[in-house]
Amino acid sequence: MAQPIADRRDVDFVLHEQIGTVDHELFEQFNKKTVNLIVSEARKLAIKEILPTFKDGDEIGCTLENGKVTTPQSFKRAWKLFCEGEWLAMCDDPEVGGQGMPKTVGCAALEYMVGANSAFMLYYGMTHGASKLVEAFGNETQKKLYMKKMFAGQWGGTMLLTEPEAGSDVGALTTAATLNDDGTYTIQGTKIFISAGEHDLCDNIIHPVLARIEGAPAGTRGISLFLVPKYLVNEDGSLGEFNNVVCTGLEEKMGIHGNATCTLALGDKGPCIGTLLGEENKGMSAMFQMMNESRAFVGVQGFAVASAAYMNALDYARTRVQGRHLTAGKDATAKNVTIINHPDVKRQLLNMKVYTEGMRSLHYYYAKCEDIVHTTDDEALKANTAALIEVLTPIVKGYITDKALEVCSHGVQVYGGYGYCKEFPAEQLMRDSRIFMIYEGTNGIQAMDLLGRKLSMNNGQSFVYFLDQIRKTIIEAQKIEGLEVLFEKVELALDRYDVVAYEIGARARSEKVLNAYAFAHPFLEITGDIVFAWMHLWRACVAAPKLAEKVGSLDPEAVAAKVGKNKEAAFYAGVMASARFFINTLLPGSYGKMDAILEGDSSVEDILDVSFGSK
Amino acid sequence: MAQPIADRRDVDFVLHEQIGTVDHELFEQFNKKTVNLIVSEARKLAIKEILPTFKDGDEIGCTLENGKVTTPQSFKRAWKLFCEGEWLAMCDDPEVGGQGMPKTVGCAALEYMVGANSAFMLYYGMTHGASKLVEAFGNETQKKLYMKKMFAGQWGGTMLLTEPEAGSDVGALTTAATLNDDGTYTIQGTKIFISAGEHDLCDNIIHPVLARIEGAPAGTRGISLFLVPKYLVNEDGSLGEFNNVVCTGLEEKMGIHGNATCTLALGDKGPCIGTLLGEENKGMSAMFQMMNESRAFVGVQGFAVASAAYMNALDYARTRVQGRHLTAGKDATAKNVTIINHPDVKRQLLNMKVYTEGMRSLHYYYAKCEDIVHTTDDEALKANTAALIEVLTPIVKGYITDKALEVCSHGVQVYGGYGYCKEFPAEQLMRDSRIFMIYEGTNGIQAMDLLGRKLSMNNGQSFVYFLDQIRKTIIEAQKIEGLEVLFEKVELALDRYDVVAYEIGARARSEKVLNAYAFAHPFLEITGDIVFAWMHLWRACVAAPKLAEKVGSLDPEAVAAKVGKNKEAAFYAGVMASARFFINTLLPGSYGKMDAILEGDSSVEDILDVSFGSK
Repeated sequence: MAQPIADRRDVDFVLHEQIGTVDHELFEQFNKKTVNLIVSEARKLAIKEILPTFKDGDEIGCTLENGKVTTPQSFKRAWKLFCEGEWLAMCDDPEVGGQGMPKTVGCAALEYMVGANSAFMLYYGMTHGASKLVEAFGNETQKKLYMKKMFAGQWGGTMLLTEPEAGSDVGALTTAATLNDDGTYTIQGTKIFISAGEHDLCDNIIHPVLARIEGAPAGTRGISLFLVPKYLVNEDGSLGEFNNVVCTGLEEKMGIHGNATCTLALGDKGPCIGTLLGEENKGMSAMFQMMNESRAFVGVQGFAVASAAYMNALDYARTRVQGRHLTAGKDATAKNVTIINHPDVKRQLLNMKVYTEGMRSLHYYYAKCEDIVHTTDDEALKANTAALIEVLTPIVKGYITDKALEVCSHGVQVYGGYGYCKEFPAEQLMRDSRIFMIYEGTNGIQAMDLLGRKLSMNNGQSFVYFLDQIRKTIIEAQKIEGLEVLFEKVELALDRYDVVAYEIGARARSEKVLNAYAFAHPFLEITGDIVFAWMHLWRACVAAPKLAEKVGSLDPEAVAAKVGKNKEAAFYAGVMASARFFINTLLPGSYGKMDAILEGDSSVEDILDVSFGSK
Repeated sequence: MAQPIADRRDVDFVLHEQIGTVDHELFEQFNKKTVNLIVSEARKLAIKEILPTFKDGDEIGCTLENGKVTTPQSFKRAWKLFCEGEWLAMCDDPEVGGQGMPKTVGCAALEYMVGANSAFMLYYGMTHGASKLVEAFGNETQKKLYMKKMFAGQWGGTMLLTEPEAGSDVGALTTAATLNDDGTYTIQGTKIFISAGEHDLCDNIIHPVLARIEGAPAGTRGISLFLVPKYLVNEDGSLGEFNNVVCTGLEEKMGIHGNATCTLALGDKGPCIGTLLGEENKGMSAMFQMMNESRAFVGVQGFAVASAAYMNALDYARTRVQGRHLTAGKDATAKNVTIINHPDVKRQLLNMKVYTEGMRSLHYYYAKCEDIVHTTDDEALKANTAALIEVLTPIVKGYITDKALEVCSHGVQVYGGYGYCKEFPAEQLMRDSRIFMIYEGTNGIQAMDLLGRKLSMNNGQSFVYFLDQIRKTIIEAQKIEGLEVLFEKVELALDRYDVVAYEIGARARSEKVLNAYAFAHPFLEITGDIVFAWMHLWRACVAAPKLAEKVGSLDPEAVAAKVGKNKEAAFYAGVMASARFFINTLLPGSYGKMDAILEGDSSVEDILDVSFGSK
């Protein structure tokens, strides 16, 4: 197998034909040829260097001894090459050591790398997120001392939010910061679930830490952000003493064993010194500014792992011979066929295909929105697009990671009994994927964010802008021959969705607020369904004319008969099949969910704790 | 926590109030008091002896050395006590050493034991299934030598079907049986994925083996069944020589590590002798007679593990304090609440509750059907009920295990980050549950069985009988005050379902057969939805009058206000909440799926292999 991570043809389709890259002088040097070269290089690194760490991460995992965490040996080489290739800051400003790529292109590179080993790439995700925090909020000294080394991956980064009694409820945290005479702070507290909290891939680790300055207000309004290095950094940038950030435990987890999930004790065995990052008591708002990026990265993890699950299952289904074709009947001479020929296996593969493609299109679109915000001079467009990103974030994080687990589970099922065994990657991909629904804000939190904040932000105008983008694609589809049935169905669903969104939004502001939030997750689900229908309709808009040109028809049977060995025609036929399958077969399931939200059954609010049962 | 496996009040409700036990002289001694005693004893054994093996099974697992498999130490004591309590043959004929309990009661006992450790109880499941094979097809010698010891758990049992090139396609197997002069057979071949294939819990293991006698017809028509002991058995019942059934490998799996999944080489290192069980070339039909039982057992595994996931999550949600109540708004004095008070957590718990309860009711109903078949003199009822069991089997196995994974996944989510860690049982329950969708016929096979065999068996009359049972409950519900909305919705859904079943059945017999089978799994899903709606309506029929009597109203708000400390009222209110939630909020999702089946989009048939993508 050449590589089991992503379908390069579909990557190119989304990158060059559907979503496209932003045309701006900042991206001048990234013409199609260069972009393709970059994607190929990322793919090569992913296959040759990162993929071989996948099993090591799971089987060897991370070990803790005397406060030091050791990652698998193969991780070191992969990390070194990843950093040497300057991938860590591929989309960042050249001034901070970045390569200034469009985010869409970065998306393609990440897709391969994360799909090769999501636990390994979490070291990247944490480091990049922390680097951006220093870039956005650091003072000159902090930037000078930390930033470039972090963007280069020489030093790692993390994010220290969660405490034993403060998980989703960040405002409850108790880690204390005490001002010292020299303007630094002494930090004391315990943080848990710290991804990449301690490891041996980097010379130093820089921890952004949420803590409370003595006397600060209660709740989230009294939280400040600090930069706390593992080793203190001298003025000349050299490493000083150990700063008493002690890893006291590693979580034993269902998956992503290759990433160290640490309990960190700060300042228990000696002074732990940090410097204020940004303003006092503004820690939460700083965090929120980074949140879109980190949530989108978790979405990329879900997507890339789902894509890998699909490619592996497809490969297996194409080679595994078992059973005769359903239509063979009693013909004793009929030969056994590859299992991709069995309708139920095919249905599962098509399911995996449509979700993977929907995820890909949405991610690249999201990335393009970021590029637009970064480059446009049109203030209205910039503001609208920035808001659109916020609206899309819970879908990118919540819906995609929910569906990623489903795709990975299908991936196990396609293999039959082998899918449950460690001999094939399917079961690890599924175990790894289960965390994506939880970290960076559980999907319940994402659903509340969509309903409680995104639906009503800017007086609902941002949500209207979001729906308008979908309508634009519907109008586009109306002009294209052969998409009649599809666009009508998406339009009907969108009209219905519009009613539901309005109704649940009103409910959330009424005395029925508890009822509204009981349906927050179903609302996230139908929103995701609509967005994926949009993405598939959009893909069909691009593919339909090209397919018609190549085979002279869009009729599925005629197409199947004429595709022959024309790989391009086969590809576009696949895009059309996905759109049809999603819109005709999966989207209808949304209607019932929409009805249920409108009906708003009160069982969730009404049921008493005691009625849930007893032992 | 007293026990985290099953809700005893709901067990009693299903056992005594909803489904009830069969009234027959064979079950005379099992009055309510005795039944409750049995359930309590099973519960005690499950909690005190089996539950402590749960983690051992996962962490220590099974090890293979020199062909011998060692199970965790704690398994030995649990197995010994399980066998001493005569639980293995609890529902079997006293003549074979059984206790002759009704299956409904056995269902309750199993629920606790399997929920405590499904991997451990798989040793029971395999042994019991093999014992029944000997009982049904053994000659006098085989019965005398093997049967009682197997039913007593002194000797274990297995089932040797699968081979490397013959998984779901059993007919392709190649294990060879050669007749010896003394009437025995020499067996040679390799079997894989053998649950409980080799272990140290029993003195001997008796393997029913599917093999092909030299010269037998190709395919399933040439397969015979043999009894192959691990150690040969002398005429006096004592153990003879090792019979060359060699465990050459253990599968490394995602879960159920406590059960040894073996590769067994038969006759590679010396003669391996078996005796024919039943008739030559009738091995498959013998297997099929056992299949309902083994598939139902996998359904019990799914159900019991889901129930355990629910009880654990409920316990956690009731004790874990985090965040303020949604309605606390900006009230700074509002205290944090237990997470069961957060609408999204409550929604997830209610989801887990309704599926667990639906599974429980369906399982006990299925068991009661078995009791009816076993005891009734009414030939028509016997035949109809036997057929109903066959119709229900793919739902009990396929739908329940699909939903069990979902319930277990919710179970992880309720814990947040802790759910992903091994500190709590949630993640293991989810990993364990993933196999249930695969073994004993993948759920794709179950879906094909429902569509291809069960829908049309006895010219469709058995399916009509099945639908009639649902209609009976609807008619019953019409007579009960307060169920108007619920029964109308179930009736509407059933009418719609009826149309879909007829249409997809006709399609399966037409030239559109591939299209029909592409929708086999969605058809299984909607069938399961309808069955669960039925079960919940039935439960409501029982609970509504009792609740009305206790609190004078069925209005959810009024009920919530009046329940107070009345535990019984709280329980019935919970039954009603489940019914409302399932029928009002989850069942509508089925409509869209039904529409999609009727529309019958052709993408799955049309898409070419090459259009699935490339690397």
